[in-house]
Amino acid sequence: MEFLVRFETNLPETMSAEEIAGLKSAERERAQELRQSGILKKLWRVPGRKATVGLWAAVDATELHAALASLPQFAWMDATVEPLATHPQEK
Amino acid sequence: MEFLVRFETNLPETMSAEEIAGLKSAERERAQELRQSGILKKLWRVPGRKATVGLWAAVDATELHAALASLPQFAWMDATVEPLATHPQEK
Amino acid sequence: MEFLVRFETNLPETMSAEEIAGLKSAERERAQELRQSGILKKLWRVPGRKATVGLWAAVDATELHAALASLPQFAWMDATVEPLATHPQEK
Amino acid sequence: MEFLVRFETNLPETMSAEEIAGLKSAERERAQELRQSGILKKLWRVPGRKATVGLWAAVDATELHAALASLPQFAWMDATVEPLATHPQEK
Amino acid sequence: MEFLVRFETNLPETMSAEEIAGLKSAERERAQELRQSGILKKLWRVPGRKATVGLWAAVDATELHAALASLPQFAWMDATVEPLATHPQEK
Amino acid sequence: MEFLVRFETNLPETMSAEEIAGLKSAERERAQELRQSGILKKLWRVPGRKATVGLWAAVDATELHAALASLPQFAWMDATVEPLATHPQEK
Amino acid sequence: MEFLVRFETNLPETMSAEEIAGLKSAERERAQELRQSGILKKLWRVPGRKATVGLWAAVDATELHAALASLPQFAWMDATVEPLATHPQEK
Amino acid sequence: MEFLVRFETNLPETMSAEEIAGLKSAERERAQELRQSGILKKLWRVPGRKATVGLWAAVDATELHAALASLPQFAWMDATVEPLATHPQEK
Amino acid sequence: MEFLVRFETNLPETMSAEEIAGLKSAERERAQELRQSGILKKLWRVPGRKATVGLWAAVDATELHAALASLPQFAWMDATVEPLATHPQEK
Amino acid sequence: MEFLVRFETNLPETMSAEEIAGLKSAERERAQELRQSGILKKLWRVPGRKATVGLWAAVDATELHAALASLPQFAWMDATVEPLATHPQEK
Repeated sequence: MEFLVRFETNLPETMSAEEIAGLKSAERERAQELRQSGILKKLWRVPGRKATVGLWAAVDATELHAALASLPQFAWMDATVEPLATHPQEK
Repeated sequence: MEFLVRFETNLPETMSAEEIAGLKSAERERAQELRQSGILKKLWRVPGRKATVGLWAAVDATELHAALASLPQFAWMDATVEPLATHPQEK
Repeated sequence: MEFLVRFETNLPETMSAEEIAGLKSAERERAQELRQSGILKKLWRVPGRKATVGLWAAVDATELHAALASLPQFAWMDATVEPLATHPQEK
Repeated sequence: MEFLVRFETNLPETMSAEEIAGLKSAERERAQELRQSGILKKLWRVPGRKATVGLWAAVDATELHAALASLPQFAWMDATVEPLATHPQEK
Repeated sequence: MEFLVRFETNLPETMSAEEIAGLKSAERERAQELRQSGILKKLWRVPGRKATVGLWAAVDATELHAALASLPQFAWMDATVEPLATHPQEK
Repeated sequence: MEFLVRFETNLPETMSAEEIAGLKSAERERAQELRQSGILKKLWRVPGRKATVGLWAAVDATELHAALASLPQFAWMDATVEPLATHPQEK
Repeated sequence: MEFLVRFETNLPETMSAEEIAGLKSAERERAQELRQSGILKKLWRVPGRKATVGLWAAVDATELHAALASLPQFAWMDATVEPLATHPQEK
Repeated sequence: MEFLVRFETNLPETMSAEEIAGLKSAERERAQELRQSGILKKLWRVPGRKATVGLWAAVDATELHAALASLPQFAWMDATVEPLATHPQEK
Repeated sequence: MEFLVRFETNLPETMSAEEIAGLKSAERERAQELRQSGILKKLWRVPGRKATVGLWAAVDATELHAALASLPQFAWMDATVEPLATHPQEK
Repeated sequence: MEFLVRFETNLPETMSAEEIAGLKSAERERAQELRQSGILKKLWRVPGRKATVGLWAAVDATELHAALASLPQFAWMDATVEPLATHPQEK
């Protein structure tokens, strides 16, 4: 089942440049793994924002939540999940 | 997978009392079938409104949409669907 | 450039079943043409609603508007368009 | 009487990992007691968020508030409570 | 248990002055009965609007919904119900 | 004239338990005085929140504001005030 | 006591030009009376809309509601009322 | 002074194709006059909608309202006006 | 041209009582100057809040912004500005 | 393609006056470069706020995002981007 996931990440002002760099690198690596397992299908940047729209696929919302919660920046992400049904024209 | 589905039904002013009665009876019958097939698990009335909150279970959003669209009043329903993940305490 | 387009179609109560069928058939045909020309990339159904989320690609918002306005149901559609930027991980 | 309760918990950045672990463990324990007393009937995770949707049963809103306020994380919870009426089909 | 109930009534343009008068008279009568049974405790007018804020008391949301749905204007009312808990200072 | 006043109090994380206890005790005392002077007529707890709905009576909004601003927690309160008119059925 | 009142008037499509002219003329006349009695102090036009912002003065919300409800277009007005307190700098 | 004006025009279902064509032609003509007088500086189409964003210049909101109200479709327009100040970098 | 300006001022928790007193005194003084120059015509207190509604007059939004930005508390104000047109009844 | 970009900049309380001055000077310089390259076409100040409305032109949302993210204050900006289509009257 596909989901449209929108998240915005705001790291705290007190985090050092080094911590941020480490976190972002870990984030990219974990995202790469989620792509390879087929859960993360596509990401877009929301122009002008520290935000992302993505197309995700998972068996259900429980598997999707586990994937999102495995992202290193999850603690600072504000995410919303929208379920998608197959459109008749796509069948 | 479970979904929280909220809908409000507003039939048009021009519909006759007879048409409304027929529609409501067909609605109850179809809901009964959806309960027997396990898709509709529980309904609540939103107090003060012609609205319903329900707990539904389906393989995915496509199956859920088919179930909702099979309700005789679907054309006049304003529905929103929220995906639910299993809570760790429920495992 | 890609766009996320969300629209909901509410045909008037006074429209006959025949008119609706004709309109829906013309809509599918026009959507098929827009897919072939590469403007319409993917559609999803929003579960529980007469609504659609879609991924579209056009040179700019002017070309996108022309494509959307060419849909036979455009007069009864409530649409919103969100611009999407390429995500660094997709490059 | 049943209530749909939605809450989101955001612990402060300054809290130590140890304090958080202690709080979460106390939270699970108190939730378990509320389940045994029949006030907390079911919890779901809102996918992508530090949030929960739950089905609760209490004599009235005063008893429900006492139960929610007894949760160790209550000070950091943003909760909304929606009253539910029995649906005619459930009688 | 007490509830704060807010409703706004918009009768259709096509209703005759006679029908409206009959409906309003029946509404006042039914409200009077609900006051005598202790369910309707107090009503206020929202200034500038065809709307009402009221304090209601019922065993639960099911009894409250039955009371609201028994009002002759219920079909044209847009109502919202907010549950109220007893404040510690009132005990 | 009556007013419906809704407020939510969020004390800062940095306040000590002692300061909070002193503030809450002063708050109850001042509320008691406002009850005796007839300005504060009734308070309810919003279930699940650090929030209150109250029925207040004052000559006008200026007197009401003075009463609210005299509460020791006023600096940390987020309040909204709704004017109430007498309902014809209450006359 | 002063109030800020905002209203927007949308007359039904089915009303004849003659009825509209009569209504608008009666509206101006009644507004003139309310000005003379000191209840209506000042009106502004919201640019681009069939809407008005006004400064009104009345003993309380009950008197204000009576004044607003006496306007011939009241049945088609969507109004909101905001209570105003005297600012310390104005004393 | 410049204003950002956003409007959406929804003509009623009952209007004939001929009336619509006449109205749209009169609209274009009046817009042309407003451009020549310097009040209407620039228009954009909101993609996917029967809506427009425009840059207008007028002495004040009263002159702007007169210009907007002179548009033949004004009765069916839902408009919002945002005042713009000169940015220091533009001086 | 007149403007309705609404602002809410929230000074940071870390500001000392002395700094606050100095700021508030400077604010009153600057407001007094703006009244004398005719830009600030009237202020009201929003009951229950650290907020103000005011009637301002300026040549245009640029002059108004300069006046608002000259207030000593401007850095901590959240302001919204609404343009007002002259109502036909006021002419 | 043109975009309407709205952003509000809130620098943290802890930033020194010197850092702020440096940042603002770098911001003006970068904005000047973006004007020269034709990406930034026009800026307006939103009266009463630390906010800006601007007209930007870029090949697509990806180029626009790169331009916005190159602004020295980007980390503290809350921006929204609206795509604009050419209006038929402008052709």
